[in-house]
Order: sequence, then structure tokens, then C-alpha cells
Amino acid sequence: MPPIKTRDRILITSLELFNLCGEPNTTTIDIANEMDISPGNLYYHFRNKDEITTGLFALYETAMNEALEPPKENKLEMLDYWMYVHIVFEKIWEFRFLHRDMVSILERNERLQKRFNRVIDRMQAAWAAVIQNMRRDFGAPISDEDIDAVANSAVITAMYWLNYQQIRAMGNAQVSANLGLGVYQLLLLISPWLQEEQRDELAAVAATYL
Amino acid sequence: MPPIKTRDRILITSLELFNLCGEPNTTTIDIANEMDISPGNLYYHFRNKDEITTGLFALYETAMNEALEPPKENKLEMLDYWMYVHIVFEKIWEFRFLHRDMVSILERNERLQKRFNRVIDRMQAAWAAVIQNMRRDFGAPISDEDIDAVANSAVITAMYWLNYQQIRAMGNAQVSANLGLGVYQLLLLISPWLQEEQRDELAAVAATYL
Repeated sequence: MPPIKTRDRILITSLELFNLCGEPNTTTIDIANEMDISPGNLYYHFRNKDEITTGLFALYETAMNEALEPPKENKLEMLDYWMYVHIVFEKIWEFRFLHRDMVSILERNERLQKRFNRVIDRMQAAWAAVIQNMRRDFGAPISDEDIDAVANSAVITAMYWLNYQQIRAMGNAQVSANLGLGVYQLLLLISPWLQEEQRDELAAVAATYL
Repeated sequence: MPPIKTRDRILITSLELFNLCGEPNTTTIDIANEMDISPGNLYYHFRNKDEITTGLFALYETAMNEALEPPKENKLEMLDYWMYVHIVFEKIWEFRFLHRDMVSILERNERLQKRFNRVIDRMQAAWAAVIQNMRRDFGAPISDEDIDAVANSAVITAMYWLNYQQIRAMGNAQVSANLGLGVYQLLLLISPWLQEEQRDELAAVAATYL
């Protein structure tokens, strides 16, 4: 296996530090120190922190676009939907610094604003597609208008679930960042339109994975 | 009318600057400059920025606790529920800096962590009470378990709605921070359990106030 290139090591270390300490609280000097390289070496690859953040954003964008690709198969089970949503939550967890300090980061990086909003647009479309598929597969009696409203709530849940868990854990140490709880909270948004059978199935999947 | 005391003027000015620029980006020097007083005068009233933030948090806490007091009347109309939720959103808007940089602010002010979580607990209980009242008034067939799940989603919607609107507005200038849209999004979480009649009523109230 070839050694990891310095550029990639900078990205990996930055992602760790940003997730741990928050992007606004981390400097390029912190990153260079953590890697035991000179700041000059770091600046050779990235002129400043915003360039590192933009590099990580590109990885986030690719990961999210892949994860949000709607499932192609017909007739999915509740477990398939659970897994689909779970993978999206895993990607958000991987790049959680972006969701934690979203406003601050985007205010400083104007070029990322439109790109981030395109990811959100895609997420909104993906949740709408999930609900449309459930309507088809499960015969859920939900209108197109209600699908839009639920997809919108699902976007807010996905984007802020981790932040919310972090706040809740501050007051009460036993709350954990269990991604499954976020997945369940999101799927519960759809559950009022499901038949008894699928609601039971969702409860069973949740009982297994929580 | 007696003149506003310097202590209160500091709080008012800080609230404006925090809401405009973000609390982490505002210094005590910025606040003193904006008020045209010496830093020494400011430090006489507040030893540091955290004390100002704590002072503002106390005002937020009082305002939220008042706004979240459940309505005492029986047989409320949909419009009453709309107004109740709207007042909570107005208080969040008034102290939006707290919701914008929640994690950063709470990490620096440990004493606020438990107090903030108590406000969230109270909000969760208030949304649950709203849905219980709707069940009573409108005959909504919702289980206690579903009430908890919807109240939880309502908390996330209320806490992060403004942040989400701010992100969306970055990519697309015509999105505005219309609080009514947040109120509607929150009430739509409950609407699947309502009868046709109340769903129409909610749509009519939304059409009037949006």
C-alpha cells in the first residue's frame, strides 16, 4: 500500500480536529502541530483553513450525493428504508463539524452556500422519494402536499439531530449520540400515514436496532 | 420615564449585536464601542462577556417559561393553537443568537447547560400538552406514544427552524425568516391525526397568516 499523501493526511487530521473541537476553534497551526509538520508544509498544500474546509466539503458532498441516491428496487421492506436513512445519518456523523457550525462556516465561505443548499435540495427530494415509494409499496394514503411537508420536517430532523443530541447530552450524561434514534425519529414522521402492519414493522425494526 | 440604567442598556445593545453578528464574533469592546462607553464602565457592570450572555439567558428563560405556559381554556380553536405556537417562535426570534450558536455558547458556559435543557424539557411538555388538548378538543385518535414522538419533532422544529431558514436564505435570496412558516411546519406535524375538518381549518389559518 502506498503511503498516504500529505494532502490527504492534512484532510484526515483536520476532519478529526474539526469534529472534536469545532471548525471555528481549530487553527491551521493546531493542524500542523497535531501532524508534526511545519506550518509552511501545510500552507504548501492549503493556503488557509477555508481551503481545507472546502476540501472536506467536497468529500462530504460526494458522500452525501452517493448516500442520497434513491433505492432503485421496487417493493422495499421497512428494514431497507431504515438502512437507507441510517447511511445518510452515518455520513452526517462523519462530517458532523459541518452541521455543528453550519452558519458560521457558510458565512465565511460564500462559495459553499449554494453547494450546501444543493445538498439540502437533494436531501429533500430523497426523503420525498422515500415517502412516495412507501405510498406505492405500502398503500399509504398520503397526498403530494403532505409528502412535501413531511420531507421538509425530515430534512430538519436529519440536519439538526446530532446538534440536538449534543445539547441534550450536556444536561444529562446518559444521553448518547445513537444514530439509530435519529433514524427512528425521522421515520416516525411518516408513520401516521402507514397501516397498522407497517407501523408494527417499524416498531420491530426499531426494537432490533436501538 | 426614568432613563434606562447602564446595566440594561448593555444587555439591550449586546442582544442586538449578538443577534446581528453572532455571540462568538462579538467582544465586550465591540459592545462598549457601540454604546460609546469606556470598557471600564462596562466591566463595572459585567466582568466579562459570559456574564452578559448569562444575563441575556435569564431574560430568555423567563420569556420562554411565560410563553410555554399551557393555555388554561378548554375548547380552543385552531387559531388559538396557531397563536400559542407563534408567541414561542417570537421569543426564539428575539433571542435567536442563543439558538444560532447554541453548542458553542453552552460549551463555554457550563452553568447554562442544565438551565437550557430545562427550557427544552418544558417545551417538550408544552407541545405534548398542545397535542393532548387537540386530542380532547378535536377527537384526534393519537396514542400517548405518538404524542411523545410528535412533541419531540416539534421541539427540534422550534429550536432549529430559524437556523434552517438562515441556511436556505443563503443560497436563495427570496427565502425570508417568516415565523409563520415555522409555526405552520410545526402544526403540520400534528395534522395527520386531525379530522378533515381541522385539517381544513389549519389550512385556512395558514392561508390567512402566511
